[in-house]
Amino acid sequence: MSETPPPEIVLGRNNYGKSEVRLFKVKRDTAVHEVWDLNVRVILEGDFDAAHYLGDNSKLLATDTMRNTVYALAKDRLIGSIEGFGLDLVDHFLEAGPTVTVCRVEVTQLRWRRIEVEGQPHDHSFVRERGERKAKVWGDGTGTRRVEAGIDDVYVLKTTNSGWENFYRDRFTTLPDTDDRVLATIVTAKWEYDIIDADFDHLWDGVMARTLETFTDHYSPSVQNTLYRMGRAVLEEFPEIERIWYSFPNVHHIAYDLERFGTDNDGEILHATQDPYGQIEGWVERRP
Amino acid sequence: MSETPPPEIVLGRNNYGKSEVRLFKVKRDTAVHEVWDLNVRVILEGDFDAAHYLGDNSKLLATDTMRNTVYALAKDRLIGSIEGFGLDLVDHFLEAGPTVTVCRVEVTQLRWRRIEVEGQPHDHSFVRERGERKAKVWGDGTGTRRVEAGIDDVYVLKTTNSGWENFYRDRFTTLPDTDDRVLATIVTAKWEYDIIDADFDHLWDGVMARTLETFTDHYSPSVQNTLYRMGRAVLEEFPEIERIWYSFPNVHHIAYDLERFGTDNDGEILHATQDPYGQIEGWVERRP
Amino acid sequence: MSETPPPEIVLGRNNYGKSEVRLFKVKRDTAVHEVWDLNVRVILEGDFDAAHYLGDNSKLLATDTMRNTVYALAKDRLIGSIEGFGLDLVDHFLEAGPTVTVCRVEVTQLRWRRIEVEGQPHDHSFVRERGERKAKVWGDGTGTRRVEAGIDDVYVLKTTNSGWENFYRDRFTTLPDTDDRVLATIVTAKWEYDIIDADFDHLWDGVMARTLETFTDHYSPSVQNTLYRMGRAVLEEFPEIERIWYSFPNVHHIAYDLERFGTDNDGEILHATQDPYGQIEGWVERRP
Amino acid sequence: MSETPPPEIVLGRNNYGKSEVRLFKVKRDTAVHEVWDLNVRVILEGDFDAAHYLGDNSKLLATDTMRNTVYALAKDRLIGSIEGFGLDLVDHFLEAGPTVTVCRVEVTQLRWRRIEVEGQPHDHSFVRERGERKAKVWGDGTGTRRVEAGIDDVYVLKTTNSGWENFYRDRFTTLPDTDDRVLATIVTAKWEYDIIDADFDHLWDGVMARTLETFTDHYSPSVQNTLYRMGRAVLEEFPEIERIWYSFPNVHHIAYDLERFGTDNDGEILHATQDPYGQIEGWVERRP
Repeated sequence: MSETPPPEIVLGRNNYGKSEVRLFKVKRDTAVHEVWDLNVRVILEGDFDAAHYLGDNSKLLATDTMRNTVYALAKDRLIGSIEGFGLDLVDHFLEAGPTVTVCRVEVTQLRWRRIEVEGQPHDHSFVRERGERKAKVWGDGTGTRRVEAGIDDVYVLKTTNSGWENFYRDRFTTLPDTDDRVLATIVTAKWEYDIIDADFDHLWDGVMARTLETFTDHYSPSVQNTLYRMGRAVLEEFPEIERIWYSFPNVHHIAYDLERFGTDNDGEILHATQDPYGQIEGWVERRP
Repeated sequence: MSETPPPEIVLGRNNYGKSEVRLFKVKRDTAVHEVWDLNVRVILEGDFDAAHYLGDNSKLLATDTMRNTVYALAKDRLIGSIEGFGLDLVDHFLEAGPTVTVCRVEVTQLRWRRIEVEGQPHDHSFVRERGERKAKVWGDGTGTRRVEAGIDDVYVLKTTNSGWENFYRDRFTTLPDTDDRVLATIVTAKWEYDIIDADFDHLWDGVMARTLETFTDHYSPSVQNTLYRMGRAVLEEFPEIERIWYSFPNVHHIAYDLERFGTDNDGEILHATQDPYGQIEGWVERRP
Repeated sequence: MSETPPPEIVLGRNNYGKSEVRLFKVKRDTAVHEVWDLNVRVILEGDFDAAHYLGDNSKLLATDTMRNTVYALAKDRLIGSIEGFGLDLVDHFLEAGPTVTVCRVEVTQLRWRRIEVEGQPHDHSFVRERGERKAKVWGDGTGTRRVEAGIDDVYVLKTTNSGWENFYRDRFTTLPDTDDRVLATIVTAKWEYDIIDADFDHLWDGVMARTLETFTDHYSPSVQNTLYRMGRAVLEEFPEIERIWYSFPNVHHIAYDLERFGTDNDGEILHATQDPYGQIEGWVERRP
Repeated sequence: MSETPPPEIVLGRNNYGKSEVRLFKVKRDTAVHEVWDLNVRVILEGDFDAAHYLGDNSKLLATDTMRNTVYALAKDRLIGSIEGFGLDLVDHFLEAGPTVTVCRVEVTQLRWRRIEVEGQPHDHSFVRERGERKAKVWGDGTGTRRVEAGIDDVYVLKTTNSGWENFYRDRFTTLPDTDDRVLATIVTAKWEYDIIDADFDHLWDGVMARTLETFTDHYSPSVQNTLYRMGRAVLEEFPEIERIWYSFPNVHHIAYDLERFGTDNDGEILHATQDPYGQIEGWVERRP
């Protein structure tokens, strides 16, 4: 089971941890319950050479232990934002793994809103909303902590006030210009905080709102321009945010050729194609 | 390419058609746009023996033609409910296929709601909602038409007012009784109309509302009892609906054993497991 | 918790059971291990009125008990085909549920083949193959049993010897004829046995082989004709099989227009599109 | 449409391109056809400030043009490995985009093997294999090129000769030691070449073979140790490979408790759980 590693082939950067820890918490001390529905991932980095080279597990925290720990700590520590819970988990695992130097915790929050009954939100019944909330916390043994938040899986679409014109043309270019098209995308965003004790729930709601509103408020000459406008709107409003990244698939809606059948089609009848798609990504940040 | 079919091995019931026709329509004659985002499937039954036995395609409508037709007819016929559009498509294809005797059209509507900006719904910008709306229309050459509507992919959850007690026990039973558990499911529903000119949009909203409200309004002794209550609430309110079927996975949320770590857990910390799950299905209908 | 059902709204056909029971069995009594990797679903029908109307669970077998039972019975009963195991489970559950009248068991077998090391199959190491094997067993209290087997998720493709010509044309038809196209599909098949003690493993392998070979052995004038040929080949070889059904998406591979760039394209460069697709389905059966 | 960017909020690192270009090529100049079934992604980096700040698209190559280009170049350039095709695409796009400084091309190859008929591989009929082949090529304007290859979605499993013992224990540890467990994972690998004109097809097959064989050839005290052994086997055999990375979910197979039912279970009856799972990742590389 053990052997001496050869001098020439070595272990490089590595990590291990537990994924898909599906933690559900109910705050039920009053009649109005609150819920957290989370998918937690724990990742540890450190000196794990003995396990890799020698099959010596004596310094490895089992991933099953990581799972137990996430549930056990949720009882007292999961009381507010997922960013805050992530910070607590990072603190714990940096201590718990005997040779751990870095811990990353990634949390996806599935979002539930209260069912409305006769216009009133219900005390303990919920329906799932689209769009996931993300948080990633990174920490090391020197006390450094980094917090990143994110949005995933939010589909948005506008039926006009978007175009794609005057782009560069070469011999493989066949796409015509348009100053009126459907613009559709799936928002993936992530952003970095410069502090670790912000009001993360309020900030997340604010980034979502600024992102959606900016999507509506201008003629979009390109996904790129809209991406920059969104990032600028977020950074102008929230000084706690250092920089923000968006990734936008351009889900193409192509006018279907109905002239062949004697029918005109002025941007009304479109094919929402699944493949292929443009993909536009970038950071918007404060000038250093 | 052709051959005589042997007498002993014959073609049985069969059908063909086009799936995943991703039709997107914008109503843009005023500043306030409306959208339909549909996934359409067309299925034809009829006498297709010559194609199967002899490779003779002369009586087959190409599935590519079906696609063209869906887009072409959407221009004038997709102006209200997906049930109404499905009825028009069925009428068309029963005529269009030279040997067609039955046509089924299945429509899935992806749901978009307007983005709110400063509390006002936007004219032409939308965000996708969870939960799909379904319609299936069946017709034959004698003029018979059947309309079925449906709901898919609506996650609901209640954190209390649900139990599972006093069930049958045999030697393989280990589950304890509980009078307080999380009840979580994903609503799939379908229901049949007794008329073909109903206000289908209003009815669909009504079934969704009754289903969600009933989920909240009682102590659930079992998924079965809640299923029956939902169906009864729908049928009592909407005489146009003949019968309704629900399918409910029972997405189990299992209390995590924290006593091992000296922590009590009174239904607060749960594991939302992915596998396996109970599945409860049934029709609720009017007594004949 | 209990109430009298109203006279007018009643429970119709219904069932319940357990899905996604992920059973893995190792036969390890010799050095050469064998594995079964199954996804089992159990579905019961019967008189469950009391549960639905009154919240009375006393005649309901818990779905958790069904899960326990599948694992417990696998020890002695899962020794050969999944069809055989399904028959044993059906026998058990018809007895186990106090008011059960019908039991269906659906089994999906994930397929593993031995890793080859220096040309020899390994004793206990496996790699997953594409293509799922299915079995469904249906039984009732009168002793009737029905066994259906199936194939899912087998992708096949031929690059020539397939066409689509001389089909019916109407005003919405734009597709040109072709006598040389790529034919690609994903095989889903199911077939019914007329006996319950066949050599199901041998038969399943045989149906898979006949299906693949028939795919290669003729010019295909249509998916319909190939479907019929496959079914006939299976029924001619295996008298134990009563009838067989195939479902074939027609995964279109469309020549990309390179003439625009001064390049000819004689069926070499194609776009493998994801949407939409034709869908052809049918039974092939013995003449009654 | 244009505006001056504010001095404080700027564009950071960004890129754009085309994803899910589903290119299928048939080499059909002899009776024995060959196929490439690819999913191509093109990503460009460069000076795209004008588009983001000003809505000026004049220096942007349209992503639709990228798609056209991939198909057009496939005619003459896709004649061997996907790594070679990726290098040609990178060369092209570095020239084609007026302000492009970096191009990345990612190719996923879906794998087809010939259908065997009476023991002979068929000329033009294929069935899909599990396991994807990946290539990523990176290039910049200075002539630097980097080539990475990869494996994805290969499920492997061994039923014995694996354990997990003598690991670190803390107060949240409940997992017992075992010296005989099922080890199951899904291989994701990537590796970097130190040359750009290697026999990439031969090398890919070799890495796959070494990975599978190493999986079988030792008692695995941990996923970590097996990961290192695999990497070492690859690097020892192939000097063209600089370093290799594996990512292994630990798909847990848990013995089902049958003692409750009076049945012993010596590692035979297991639950193949879907959630959560351990995840082990790391590079194995040559000592600098």
